[in-house]
Amino acid sequence: MADTLDARDAAEAPARQGIYDEDGFVASDFLDDVREAIDAERPKDVKAAVEPLHESELGDLLEELDPERRQGLVRLMGSEFDYTALTEVDEAIRLSIVDAMPNEQIAEAVLELDSDDAVYILEDLEEEDRKEILAALPFRERLRLRRSLEYPEESAGRRMQTEFVAVPPYWTVGQTIDYMREDDDLPESFAQIFVVDPTFKLLGAVDLDRILRAKRPEKVEDVMHETRHAIPAEMDQEEAAQIIEQYDLLSAAVVDSGDRLVGVLTIDDVIDIVQAEAEEDIKRLGGVGDEEISDSVLVAAKSRFAWLLINLVTAILASLVIGLFDATIEQMVALAVLMPIVASMGGNAGTQTMTVAVRALASRDIDLYNAGRIIRRESLVGVLNGVLFALIIGAVAALWFQSTSLGMVIALAMVVNMIAAALAGILIPLLLDNFGADPAIASGTFVTTVTDVVGFFAFLGLAAWWFGI
Amino acid sequence: MADTLDARDAAEAPARQGIYDEDGFVASDFLDDVREAIDAERPKDVKAAVEPLHESELGDLLEELDPERRQGLVRLMGSEFDYTALTEVDEAIRLSIVDAMPNEQIAEAVLELDSDDAVYILEDLEEEDRKEILAALPFRERLRLRRSLEYPEESAGRRMQTEFVAVPPYWTVGQTIDYMREDDDLPESFAQIFVVDPTFKLLGAVDLDRILRAKRPEKVEDVMHETRHAIPAEMDQEEAAQIIEQYDLLSAAVVDSGDRLVGVLTIDDVIDIVQAEAEEDIKRLGGVGDEEISDSVLVAAKSRFAWLLINLVTAILASLVIGLFDATIEQMVALAVLMPIVASMGGNAGTQTMTVAVRALASRDIDLYNAGRIIRRESLVGVLNGVLFALIIGAVAALWFQSTSLGMVIALAMVVNMIAAALAGILIPLLLDNFGADPAIASGTFVTTVTDVVGFFAFLGLAAWWFGI
Repeated sequence: MADTLDARDAAEAPARQGIYDEDGFVASDFLDDVREAIDAERPKDVKAAVEPLHESELGDLLEELDPERRQGLVRLMGSEFDYTALTEVDEAIRLSIVDAMPNEQIAEAVLELDSDDAVYILEDLEEEDRKEILAALPFRERLRLRRSLEYPEESAGRRMQTEFVAVPPYWTVGQTIDYMREDDDLPESFAQIFVVDPTFKLLGAVDLDRILRAKRPEKVEDVMHETRHAIPAEMDQEEAAQIIEQYDLLSAAVVDSGDRLVGVLTIDDVIDIVQAEAEEDIKRLGGVGDEEISDSVLVAAKSRFAWLLINLVTAILASLVIGLFDATIEQMVALAVLMPIVASMGGNAGTQTMTVAVRALASRDIDLYNAGRIIRRESLVGVLNGVLFALIIGAVAALWFQSTSLGMVIALAMVVNMIAAALAGILIPLLLDNFGADPAIASGTFVTTVTDVVGFFAFLGLAAWWFGI
Repeated sequence: MADTLDARDAAEAPARQGIYDEDGFVASDFLDDVREAIDAERPKDVKAAVEPLHESELGDLLEELDPERRQGLVRLMGSEFDYTALTEVDEAIRLSIVDAMPNEQIAEAVLELDSDDAVYILEDLEEEDRKEILAALPFRERLRLRRSLEYPEESAGRRMQTEFVAVPPYWTVGQTIDYMREDDDLPESFAQIFVVDPTFKLLGAVDLDRILRAKRPEKVEDVMHETRHAIPAEMDQEEAAQIIEQYDLLSAAVVDSGDRLVGVLTIDDVIDIVQAEAEEDIKRLGGVGDEEISDSVLVAAKSRFAWLLINLVTAILASLVIGLFDATIEQMVALAVLMPIVASMGGNAGTQTMTVAVRALASRDIDLYNAGRIIRRESLVGVLNGVLFALIIGAVAALWFQSTSLGMVIALAMVVNMIAAALAGILIPLLLDNFGADPAIASGTFVTTVTDVVGFFAFLGLAAWWFGI
């Protein structure tokens, strides 16, 4: 009953339960207690606080602790530490914890984990350490994990769980239920059972609710559905996630190149993949690669340096354009004052179009058939907003510098740059995608290069021509 | 067997099955066939092509058709049209299809849908139409849908499914299985059954695999687990999704303010929510609000106008700063040529920091305890990259304009602006979040305003002081 009361409290003042405060952060008093218990080396208190936690809560707790206390917590928990929590923390934190552990201890931890979690931890380790850990495992587990690790990075084979329930097609529903009641070696939880032939070729699948609704004498092959969406183990995890998501599957069979069932990809993996891919897109659009908030200063600075260097080159390119008109600016300083406005508006309009284009490409809403329509649409939006902002900035400039001519020049340049922004914003992502590059990663630089260069050139060039200087 | 062969083909040349070509787009020959059948008004051919499709495939097909053919397809399919497909298309397309249908037909469609899909379609309609459609429904359905629609927009109550299986705690596992075998009024698929008291207060839940593994005489209350994560119907969908995701639940009970079970939120809804929220963040960072690729030119232009207008104001602010130094620029045009570089590098560095900060806030990786550490980290990254780029641009400027002094001035200004960028990039999102605003939506403008103003002021001000002009 206590739990449903919790839920009501939550409805009144939205709060998350467990170790979190009402803002969703780890509560400070809980955090202080844990810190104190670690500092005082009191394993009993640490265990009392940590043992009831869900793996994701323990992950959040680890992220809040400083590195020494993290090691301290793992050490004080001993064999009672839930290693699944390591799959819930940033890579940098995971590595710092694992690197501090002897390989035999990692091997013991790996044995306790589901195969997908074990692979997740093992894949980031040094080749040497991984070999030593695998060698310390029993034959069957070693084989399983090695097979998963042989699939490419970010493939379905890497993310799959190798624990699943598979039965032959001629079994009855009753037999199947009895098997599940008696077998102790079942996965911890599952939503689907698979039907395979003697060579383990995948024949179909049955959702558990279908089993429960069938009569005991019915044959499994009569209640199963053909698995239309079996996932090849080599398939990229993003593509696999899209299939599971599109067809609202609770889990999908993963098959090897001989169509044999090798694992299962569950929907909670899909959520992790969907989030990771969205995160990747956002970070690439923002120019920060794979950086995490827990990365060190040096790692962060290095990962951003490359992007800033590219930007420096394109900024110098824009400056060269300005340099062409230095005589014009010398005659009319107002041009230097106003020119960043034209460039900045173009940059923003181009980023807007690019954002829409990158998202549409990611969700496959743009293709060859409607590209024409979308380019037309973006150009029209560019013309429309271009004309509106030309009127506004034209009036502002004319009043500010008491010159109708200057107003006309900046208005014209604004229209030109807004159209250039629209075209660059849609065409650059399309071209990058067409050449197999990720449009999220480089579109931004190219788009703002175009809008800077066109913006400065149109404004200063028109001014030079209009005023004859 | 044909299906497993498909899977193997897919492994060799990654391809999606069904109506898609190898790039994941709707195959052009299929599309042409459907178009032809619609144009020739051949309902039989349209049905033959469309009926085998999954709802999401039908959704993709609808998005590829022009508006007239979309209406044509719905009309020709008649009562065999799968209205669930409407939940798979952009809002603009959904509305255009639904608006063309008479209300009685919508009411018939709604009756066929799961309650969450029905709500999804009804919530976007005009108040008037919605009332008329609800009035045309049988009492029980009307009540159910009206209750969902009374919860706030984007709440768990809006997204929940009101079909679920609930049993009393004193039932045995055998009784429960028999009930599921015989009752015809069960939801289409489910992964969990709920345990309630006579007033429908939620007591617990049992995963189906647990039921299957239990012996028939066991009591439900002995195999159930307490639902620690019941979700209040008023809770924001994003928060609800975070809970389901964090605890890897297949589905979660939704309760009203009296703790009574009113619905269930399933994990496939969570994926949709996670994707929608990531999409929202990306679009807000790009300054395009809720725009969709299918929006009309006018809608798109309007939604982008506000953002561009704010940018215009901030760009004029930056110009005012330049205006302060017009005499200096008149003396030394090289300053006008170089000044956009300082501003642009600051803008990019600020955007990088802001992207990291916005994502860390979204995943609650920043809080009061580590904010200090992260501000320190960002400042150090700013200093480090600031010094590096100061050296580069200082050398470039000194060589370009044959002036060591100019190189020194731009180098100093670069360091100042990179530090300002780091501080603005981290502090602005933190402040916005602190005042309850979404840091994704407005951080960008504020950050680039700071880097433009500081960039121009530092560079031109230092130059004016150094050269005494």
